[in-house]
Amino acid sequence: MNEFIEGYCDGWIDDLALFFGSHPEMGISLDEVRLLAPIPELKRNITCLGKNYAAHAEEIHGMTGGPSEIPTHPIYFTKAIHTVIGTKEEILSHENITKKLDYEAELAVVIGRKGIDIPKEKAEEYIFGYAVANDVSARDLQTGHVQWFKGKSLTTHCPIGPWIVHKSVLPLPLTLDIKCYVNEELRQSANTGELIFDVPSIISDLSRGYELRPGDIILTGTPAGVGMGFDPPRFLKSGDEVCCMIEGVGSIVNKVK
Amino acid sequence: MNEFIEGYCDGWIDDLALFFGSHPEMGISLDEVRLLAPIPELKRNITCLGKNYAAHAEEIHGMTGGPSEIPTHPIYFTKAIHTVIGTKEEILSHENITKKLDYEAELAVVIGRKGIDIPKEKAEEYIFGYAVANDVSARDLQTGHVQWFKGKSLTTHCPIGPWIVHKSVLPLPLTLDIKCYVNEELRQSANTGELIFDVPSIISDLSRGYELRPGDIILTGTPAGVGMGFDPPRFLKSGDEVCCMIEGVGSIVNKVK
Repeated sequence: MNEFIEGYCDGWIDDLALFFGSHPEMGISLDEVRLLAPIPELKRNITCLGKNYAAHAEEIHGMTGGPSEIPTHPIYFTKAIHTVIGTKEEILSHENITKKLDYEAELAVVIGRKGIDIPKEKAEEYIFGYAVANDVSARDLQTGHVQWFKGKSLTTHCPIGPWIVHKSVLPLPLTLDIKCYVNEELRQSANTGELIFDVPSIISDLSRGYELRPGDIILTGTPAGVGMGFDPPRFLKSGDEVCCMIEGVGSIVNKVK
Repeated sequence: MNEFIEGYCDGWIDDLALFFGSHPEMGISLDEVRLLAPIPELKRNITCLGKNYAAHAEEIHGMTGGPSEIPTHPIYFTKAIHTVIGTKEEILSHENITKKLDYEAELAVVIGRKGIDIPKEKAEEYIFGYAVANDVSARDLQTGHVQWFKGKSLTTHCPIGPWIVHKSVLPLPLTLDIKCYVNEELRQSANTGELIFDVPSIISDLSRGYELRPGDIILTGTPAGVGMGFDPPRFLKSGDEVCCMIEGVGSIVNKVK
């Protein structure tokens, strides 16, 4: 997929059948196949935004009394590549390490072209497409370690999929409903139009002095309604089923083991 | 190098000449070659520790009044892979983005074997070797963005090298002098024996629920004496030459462009 994304965006792959070979899978029902993560082996960590929906920034602030409510700059952190799983794969609860496992439905942007210092108005040229992600978070590790990386990087903690929808299907600006259900109960419900920093702003800001590459994945932040935001908190436990969905992109469903 | 490290540690590469082919370079003076970064293309972000020398944690606390002095847990963050350069390559000042460019001499640990939940006493088995690194930091981006990732990830901001010294040369525990000079003026001087979390502790703690892989690089933190710690601060400027050295490992020299 990394090679395909790069070649397709650079224009040297134009015949999909030729690139992927013959495709006997055409016409096979989704029920008969197992979908892997769209890019199972990323070339570097996933870049994520924190606090990028105002209502979520406020719910977090209410719980932790952290330094700022609405961020004035995008807050970037990363998730390690070994966290990636596809839809229907299991989220490991890592009960020996964390007691505060949480979900975060997010719009994932897949980068298609290499670029640095990308102007906002050219950002769309650098996008390959979009997917749904669940930025699973071990809240106790996240706060105990100050920097969020470790609490965001336990194995299986980045379900992503169910596929990548090409950008041509979803022109900017994106105003897509985004929802998260836990055991079929609606927990998060918002619209990607509510992002504090929208997709072009993120690409432009992140790429300042920073090289984006084909196959890079950016998670754009989660809306209000995470488990930590409830009083008392409602963390994930073994057996829970989490479904994240975005209008026009699809849905991913993962059980907690 | 990624393939070599994996194969060498797994034992299926035992004949170096066979792996690298004939080696006419043997006997050539270092002055006649250009050393690249030992692993020019990492397979994922570099994992770094913050505040892992007590004196540095205190100097930072003095300047920023941050939340904690001596950390009780390792603080992990990452640097993007496009930051890697070798010795004698130039550090870009990125003057349009940052006015507070700083240096941080660090011991880099190169992982040799895949592992998860690694006990402290087995940590050495997962190490391939050691290198010197400079965790160049854009302090204004680092603090402005709350999470440190972006301020640590501008292009060219991770000089590393000059080579990797195999672990057999430097048995644990490591008590190596570590120094940083700016324009030949000594700024940092400490010993890796002063690490709050030592190398086996880092490997054991980081690998809890987290898969280490061959070729992963861990930067173990920087001692006191960074530019931000001076009053007034002494940040890097165009033309400065930074030399980071670790006893028994080597030194890297990089000019700021």
